[in-house]
Amino acid sequence: MRSRFQQGLDELRARLLRMGGLAEQAVDRACQAYIDSDLTRCHLVLEGESLINATEREIDELAFDLLAMQQPMAVDLRFILAVTKINSDLERVGDQAVNIAERVMDMVELPKAELPVDIPRMAAAVAAMVKRSLESFIEGKAELAMAVLEMDNVVDRMKDEAFITLVKTMNEHPERTRQALDALLVARNLERVADHATNIAEDVIFWVRGADVRHNAAKEFVPTPQELTDTH
Amino acid sequence: MRSRFQQGLDELRARLLRMGGLAEQAVDRACQAYIDSDLTRCHLVLEGESLINATEREIDELAFDLLAMQQPMAVDLRFILAVTKINSDLERVGDQAVNIAERVMDMVELPKAELPVDIPRMAAAVAAMVKRSLESFIEGKAELAMAVLEMDNVVDRMKDEAFITLVKTMNEHPERTRQALDALLVARNLERVADHATNIAEDVIFWVRGADVRHNAAKEFVPTPQELTDTH
Repeated sequence: MRSRFQQGLDELRARLLRMGGLAEQAVDRACQAYIDSDLTRCHLVLEGESLINATEREIDELAFDLLAMQQPMAVDLRFILAVTKINSDLERVGDQAVNIAERVMDMVELPKAELPVDIPRMAAAVAAMVKRSLESFIEGKAELAMAVLEMDNVVDRMKDEAFITLVKTMNEHPERTRQALDALLVARNLERVADHATNIAEDVIFWVRGADVRHNAAKEFVPTPQELTDTH
Repeated sequence: MRSRFQQGLDELRARLLRMGGLAEQAVDRACQAYIDSDLTRCHLVLEGESLINATEREIDELAFDLLAMQQPMAVDLRFILAVTKINSDLERVGDQAVNIAERVMDMVELPKAELPVDIPRMAAAVAAMVKRSLESFIEGKAELAMAVLEMDNVVDRMKDEAFITLVKTMNEHPERTRQALDALLVARNLERVADHATNIAEDVIFWVRGADVRHNAAKEFVPTPQELTDTH
């Protein structure tokens, strides 16, 4: 039978997965809203933010209570700390989805403009990164997480290209400036979602591989395991 | 005499303050670089990023080791968790300073353009928020932290105004589009720094006030203190 503490860890994992699902859904909705100029989906994203925020706090509280419950083993401690960090990143993914939805709401008010930017392609790449980072967490696989880190460069390049072509559009077609700016900001928001997926992947690696990926600069203070058992 | 664990907490606090100093310095340098079109300061910001990242990891490691060292009391546990969250926010403040420096490096290449935006004023407001949020941490005062939350609205308004006037500039003076866009992105980066200062203030409130500012939705799972001592 699993201990109460182990059940708590299972619950923590389950809640983080729900949080991941909410964040993923928010990004998907915001991107689909962009593609279809769909105000309904924008409103869904905006309305969904409070649930994401509430879920973040619940997860933090549960992590806190688990840490307070007993002296966790190193692997469980790493897991709990990774969850709190992933949790923050997922909340911020939700914030980015809100930002995208707000840009779409601005765009919908404006005359439709042809823009030389493939936001749907960028959105698909970013959504894949988020999905993959959550899979790496579910499966506890550092290799999956490593793949996410590589994808980040691709998204960065897409954002840089979008930046260049959209500034050109603004120069050549001043009447499309605001639409181009909205698209540019959406591209930046997507890049930030990709950054959060990268952070999540790094936290999974920290959790799975443990101290071996962490550098040792802080060690001068830290007592040895021997000292730990001696001094308390 | 303070225990080894208490010394560890002191060290954790001292390191977080150093981290705060680095992040503050990065923002100040980036803003000054904007004001003076100063590439030297831009490079200092870019070079400073690796120290900020290394410091972030050291703090996380120390927090981890302290949690592993002994069963912390609730107040210490809240303090350690608040430190890890503030730490992440400070690292991201550093990232924003880098983003600003990169925009300045772009601007310096372009013809100088008059822009109807008061970035120095916004920068001063944001720097004050960061400073105040760190003071609220040093002094452990929730009132100071509350003041930071109020300042965030002011900065948000400044960013919105900057957005409106700069889009107008882009429309009326297409030859200034890129400079206006750089300024707009700097304003957004500053707004994000303000968001991180807000997060820091919230974490200070969480640490100082404890559970009374946290809502209770997660409590259905969490065992009572009685259960905690019973089950382990």
